[in-house]
Amino acid sequence: MHIKDYIEANKERFLDELFGLIRIPSISCLALHKPDMLRAAEYWKKTLLAAGVDRAEIYETDGNPVTYGEKILNPAWPTVLVYGHMDVMPVDPLDSWNTDPFEPVVVNGKIYGRGADDDKGQGFMHAKAFEYLVKNNKLKCNVKFMIEGEEEIGSPNLGKFCKENTEMLKADVILVSDTSIIATDIPSITTGLRGLAYLQVEVTGPSRDLHSGLFGGAVANPINILSKMLSSLQDDQNKITIPGFYNDVIEVSLDERAEMAKAPFDLDEYQMAINVKTVWGEDGYSTNERTGIRPSFDICGIWGGYTGEGAKTVLPSKAYAKISSRLVPDQDHEKIARMIKSHLESIAPDSVTVDCKVLHGGPAYVSPTNSKAYLAADKAYTEAFGIRPVPVRSGGSIPIISTFEKVLGVKSILMGFGLESDAIHSPNENYPIENFYKGIETITYFYNHYVDIMNA
Amino acid sequence: MHIKDYIEANKERFLDELFGLIRIPSISCLALHKPDMLRAAEYWKKTLLAAGVDRAEIYETDGNPVTYGEKILNPAWPTVLVYGHMDVMPVDPLDSWNTDPFEPVVVNGKIYGRGADDDKGQGFMHAKAFEYLVKNNKLKCNVKFMIEGEEEIGSPNLGKFCKENTEMLKADVILVSDTSIIATDIPSITTGLRGLAYLQVEVTGPSRDLHSGLFGGAVANPINILSKMLSSLQDDQNKITIPGFYNDVIEVSLDERAEMAKAPFDLDEYQMAINVKTVWGEDGYSTNERTGIRPSFDICGIWGGYTGEGAKTVLPSKAYAKISSRLVPDQDHEKIARMIKSHLESIAPDSVTVDCKVLHGGPAYVSPTNSKAYLAADKAYTEAFGIRPVPVRSGGSIPIISTFEKVLGVKSILMGFGLESDAIHSPNENYPIENFYKGIETITYFYNHYVDIMNA
Repeated sequence: MHIKDYIEANKERFLDELFGLIRIPSISCLALHKPDMLRAAEYWKKTLLAAGVDRAEIYETDGNPVTYGEKILNPAWPTVLVYGHMDVMPVDPLDSWNTDPFEPVVVNGKIYGRGADDDKGQGFMHAKAFEYLVKNNKLKCNVKFMIEGEEEIGSPNLGKFCKENTEMLKADVILVSDTSIIATDIPSITTGLRGLAYLQVEVTGPSRDLHSGLFGGAVANPINILSKMLSSLQDDQNKITIPGFYNDVIEVSLDERAEMAKAPFDLDEYQMAINVKTVWGEDGYSTNERTGIRPSFDICGIWGGYTGEGAKTVLPSKAYAKISSRLVPDQDHEKIARMIKSHLESIAPDSVTVDCKVLHGGPAYVSPTNSKAYLAADKAYTEAFGIRPVPVRSGGSIPIISTFEKVLGVKSILMGFGLESDAIHSPNENYPIENFYKGIETITYFYNHYVDIMNA
Repeated sequence: MHIKDYIEANKERFLDELFGLIRIPSISCLALHKPDMLRAAEYWKKTLLAAGVDRAEIYETDGNPVTYGEKILNPAWPTVLVYGHMDVMPVDPLDSWNTDPFEPVVVNGKIYGRGADDDKGQGFMHAKAFEYLVKNNKLKCNVKFMIEGEEEIGSPNLGKFCKENTEMLKADVILVSDTSIIATDIPSITTGLRGLAYLQVEVTGPSRDLHSGLFGGAVANPINILSKMLSSLQDDQNKITIPGFYNDVIEVSLDERAEMAKAPFDLDEYQMAINVKTVWGEDGYSTNERTGIRPSFDICGIWGGYTGEGAKTVLPSKAYAKISSRLVPDQDHEKIARMIKSHLESIAPDSVTVDCKVLHGGPAYVSPTNSKAYLAADKAYTEAFGIRPVPVRSGGSIPIISTFEKVLGVKSILMGFGLESDAIHSPNENYPIENFYKGIETITYFYNHYVDIMNA
């Protein structure tokens, strides 16, 4: 049976099964959802067993569990390790959602729900592609699945899990669907990921909230100070001003940049999609360069003082921010986090105290476009989409990908099928059904081409 | 009966009655507490009637009600109008309170609860001083009470109420206890109040929250922009940079500043009381000048993006701030609010939109120290405290005081008895019982001296 016919015959079931996974609110950064992480791990175990693995197990870690499954047909054959994650981002602001984030629905051909794309929808495609290959006796390699529950918080325990299970996780390539394509008619493969340093900053002024009339102008206001400190981190050209920040950045050559600039990109469409009059970023770089090859600095959250209704006049005791810096090769995320922390501490005036905590981080990653696995992926997309995929550097981060290379010695291929409009991490996250089915189809082609190329 | 004996004989009842008022959560800026405003108005009506007014009534306004009461002994005699407010500030952060803000308790000689000082405790002293004078046949002037329910939100409806009731509110002086003394052994009378312009700023970037990895560095982050905009409003000398902001500021002469500098002030104690290593403010001015004769700019609240547990990587759609500028004579609060609004709009980059709303405001006020009422107050404090009160300019604002002068043509005497450590507008607001009783005593002396001076 051809994969297209198999999808047609099973499409309702595929969706039902995916919906069951999305219904589990497996938000890894909220302690409250700890029990949901185990439920998600069990759901994945059941899914893998039904799809045809020889064995599937839930491995405990110091954090959330990992579901592992494998089908070993012949130890001499090539082995593909599929990596995905079962955890999702928080859903706030909840009132911006049009539907319940944990009750998936299909509207206008799109699955709406937290994790619909990232990474329940995309991860699930691999289970279904594998199921097709097994049930139709078309699998000609070994397959392993490693589905973790802490990707959205920086995979703090997966490195250790990899180190402790190098033999079990041995593979020739790691396959990951956790990225996007440019458009449904412009497929692309992600060949680069930015790194990340994420910190929380707490600024304390007076030991209690003060009356802004009685004290305002004479006592440092921690919100004023925090704003001043954070805004000083970027100059008028939107360059990051922290001394040494760019030291390890590998400057991409003009030739390479010219090559990258050939990727289809419509600035008007981009601006329209997110409803901004104009883009904004580091002087001297295009939009794709700003997210692909340049580091960035974003305040992901800020809070302090009175935030309720009306006009409370207060000079607060504390102000907070969550800040994130996306990194590029060869910036070391731990070094950068230390740099940000000590820079903020150094510029804080004596009238406040500053406490910086590193919450999350990981290095950048670049994937070669001449590997056997990349060639197989290239052929697979071409077969499925009728057009060759564009290699692109994404602005996002999947910190664990670099760890895989370091610990397991295996490169990853980032075969994503999401769209920018999927609103991952945002309210109304969605995933077009078309992309879901197209992804399953493409993945089966990858296995065919990969085995052919490996055996050639 | 001497006032001291009257207080001694009734002190428990005075406290009980005040506690009943504090128990009503009359937070004027929260719509939820609308019914509590009426309960507070009724409580005040009952209090005034019991104290001995001829009549007391609750007047409806477009906002919260006003309780008015009067005792007219002889239309030819001097008339004192007592102004106070029954509304209080919100109580958040609630978890910083050691006790329930609306269940007053006395700990170590201090009444703890929202409004214990501002302005339930201080306002109530007037009811009890009046009660003493009436019950002991010592009242030799007419007394009127106007207790409003919107002081903490800028008295938006009291100006209209005054205009509609000029005849009823006719008086020779307005008496207000809503300020502080320097210390229990250093009494002071507030002779100046700063004005206020309070705005809320909303910055919108993309129309939805975005993934900070995929978009970070290429799309304007409204928190980054808001921080940059707000921090640009003050330069390195902490001068406000909005063009024209200082145009109408009356510079206080060096002679006057030298005179003001004689007021007792211990910087170490001040810093210790609020636990800051060092003060912070406009270059070239002392701490008391910074709050007394100079305008200020404070961010009273800021919020946007992800503020929960952990590390959500988001480039948010919106960021907000509540900003307050304290003003000095002759700055026009409406002009300054327009100035702030148009300046913020003018410095916002094209990549975001800015929406500024004026939430609150009022002009500054200066009270002469040679009026009959001031002399009476001076004598009253001297009699009660055994030492002459220091005239001081306070940093706080009571916007309605200027309106009284404009609409009713009557000056106010700010006879406050609070302490800086009372933590008004903050968690654990308190009011020393000693100050409560001393205030009642001082107010009765004021009536005696005022009648004597007026009749001299």
